[in-house]
Amino acid sequence: MFKNILKSFSLKQTTGFLLLLIFLLANALILWKYVLNEEKASLSVSDRIVFIGGNPRSGTTLMRVLLDVHGSIYCGPETVILLPFMALSKKLNEQLPPNVLMVRTRITAKSLKEATANFILHVLKNRNKQEDKILCAKDPPILNYMDILVDLFPNSKFIFMVRDGRAVSFSWLGYRKLEYNFQNYLDLLKEWDDRNNITMTLCDRVGPSYCKMVKYENLVLNKELVLRDLMKFLELEWNDNMLNHENFMETDVELGRKEWSNSQVIKPIYYKDSSKKWAKEIEDYDENIVREEIPMLKFFGYV
Amino acid sequence: MFKNILKSFSLKQTTGFLLLLIFLLANALILWKYVLNEEKASLSVSDRIVFIGGNPRSGTTLMRVLLDVHGSIYCGPETVILLPFMALSKKLNEQLPPNVLMVRTRITAKSLKEATANFILHVLKNRNKQEDKILCAKDPPILNYMDILVDLFPNSKFIFMVRDGRAVSFSWLGYRKLEYNFQNYLDLLKEWDDRNNITMTLCDRVGPSYCKMVKYENLVLNKELVLRDLMKFLELEWNDNMLNHENFMETDVELGRKEWSNSQVIKPIYYKDSSKKWAKEIEDYDENIVREEIPMLKFFGYV
Repeated sequence: MFKNILKSFSLKQTTGFLLLLIFLLANALILWKYVLNEEKASLSVSDRIVFIGGNPRSGTTLMRVLLDVHGSIYCGPETVILLPFMALSKKLNEQLPPNVLMVRTRITAKSLKEATANFILHVLKNRNKQEDKILCAKDPPILNYMDILVDLFPNSKFIFMVRDGRAVSFSWLGYRKLEYNFQNYLDLLKEWDDRNNITMTLCDRVGPSYCKMVKYENLVLNKELVLRDLMKFLELEWNDNMLNHENFMETDVELGRKEWSNSQVIKPIYYKDSSKKWAKEIEDYDENIVREEIPMLKFFGYV
Repeated sequence: MFKNILKSFSLKQTTGFLLLLIFLLANALILWKYVLNEEKASLSVSDRIVFIGGNPRSGTTLMRVLLDVHGSIYCGPETVILLPFMALSKKLNEQLPPNVLMVRTRITAKSLKEATANFILHVLKNRNKQEDKILCAKDPPILNYMDILVDLFPNSKFIFMVRDGRAVSFSWLGYRKLEYNFQNYLDLLKEWDDRNNITMTLCDRVGPSYCKMVKYENLVLNKELVLRDLMKFLELEWNDNMLNHENFMETDVELGRKEWSNSQVIKPIYYKDSSKKWAKEIEDYDENIVREEIPMLKFFGYV
C-alpha cells in the first residue's frame, strides 16, 4: 500500500512529504531528549553513593585515595558539611517524628526526606567534575548516620575502616599533643572502643550488602586481595592502578588541605610494625588492663 | 502552491497525510508539555517566598492567618525546621567562606547555595496543596537570616511584625510563668530590645523593597489601611475576605497545634487597650527606667 502511495506522488508532493518527515524527525529527536533527561533526573535519588568512615586515623584517607585512583568513582577530600547536616537531620527525625511534623508544621516526612536527599546529591554531584563517576563521601564520623543514609539512598554502600585501637590511640596522643601516660592513652582507647562499638552495631543492622568493614592492617598487608574483595562489594571492575596509587597522586587524586593523613597517602603503602611502640613509649603501659577495658580489641581480633 | 498540492492528492494520500498530521500534532503537544515543565522547574529558584517574623507575641500568627485568608498565598503553621536549617546554613557560611570551602572540600559556594535554596523550596512547595499559591513561611526568628535569604531568593519578601515591647514582655511573663516583678519584666524587655534592634538593622540593610515593618497596633486599629498597603508591598490583589478573617478559620486556615496564639486568631480583630496593665500589675514598675533602658521603644514610637 505504501509503495502505491509513494508511486502516485508528484515531485511537489514528494518534496512536501520529505519536508514534513524532516520536521517530524527533528520534533521526535527533541522530544526524546526531554524524555531522557526527565528519566535521568527522576533516577537520581537512587544513585549510588559510597560513604567511607571509621574512627579517625584508621585509614579512611588511604581508602578514599585508592578509590579516587580507580577512576570510576569520585571521593575527593572530606565534605565536612555533610556531618552537621546529617546531625541536624537526625535531630529533626528524633524531635519531630512524622505525625508530629505533620500536625505541627504541615510538612510531610516524605518531602523532608526528599529535600534532605536532594541536598546531599546536589552538593556531591556538583563537585564531581566527571558526571559519569559514582558519588562518594569520606568523612570519618559519617557512618554514625548509616541508618538514615540507607533510608535516603537505598543504593548506597558503606566502607567501615577499622584499625587496631592501640595504634590509633597512640597516633592520637601525638596529634592532640597529650602527655604520653597510660591514663591519657586509656581514655583515648575508650573513645575508640565506644565509637567502633556504635558503628559496628549500625553496620550489623544495615547488613553486609550495605556495610563492609575493612581492616587497615589487612588492606596494607594484603592489598590486592582486600581491594578485589572490596570491588566486588562495590560492584566495580578491577583496576590495576590501585596497586600503585602513589603514581597517580598528582593527576587523579585531589588532596584537601588540612587532611592530616596527606603526608602518608602520597607514599606507597607500607606496613609500619608499630605493635610494640605503645608498650615501649607509654609510661606504666599495662596490656592486661587494656585487654580488659577495651572489649572491641578482642571483637576485631587484635588481641 | 499548497492549494495545488492538496488538489492533486487522492483519498488514500489525504488519509495518509491526515494521519501524519495527527501524529505530528500529538508529538508537538507532548514536546510542548516537556518544554513548559522544564521552564517551570528552572524558574523555581526565583520563586517568591514571603517570610513572616518578629519577636514572639507580636502578631506573627495573626499576620499569617490574614494572608492565608487572602487565598493566593499559603503560609500555614510555623515550619519549625527552617530555623535550625538556616542556623546551620549561617554557621557554615561563617566557618567555611567560599575559598576555604573550595580548598578543603572541593564544594563550590554556588552549589551549596543552590542545595540550600532547593531544600527550602522543596519543603515549602510540598506542603502547599494548591500549587499556584505563593509560598510563605512564618517562624518568628526567621528574619535573623534575612540577609542570607535575600541572597538565596532574590524575589522574596519579609514582613517584620513589631508590637509594643511593654505589652510583649507582659505577655511573656505569663507564658514563661515568671514572677510579676520589675526585674523579670525588665529582663524580658531587654531581650525584646536586642531582638528588635538586630532585626531592624537587617531590615534596613536589605531595604524597603524586601522588608516591611508592620506594627501590630496599627494592623489592629487600621486594618484595611495597613493591609492595602501590605498588598502593594507584596504585589498582590486586594481581597475583602481579609477584613473578616474569623469567618474563614475553619475552611481556609490551617492552625498548627502548639501555636499558642491560636486562641486569639480565631476571634475577630480587636484592640485590647492593655497600655496600663503592666504599670498596674508589675510590682515597682518604673516607666522612667523602662524608657531609659529600652531604646527601641522610642525608636518604634511607642514612648
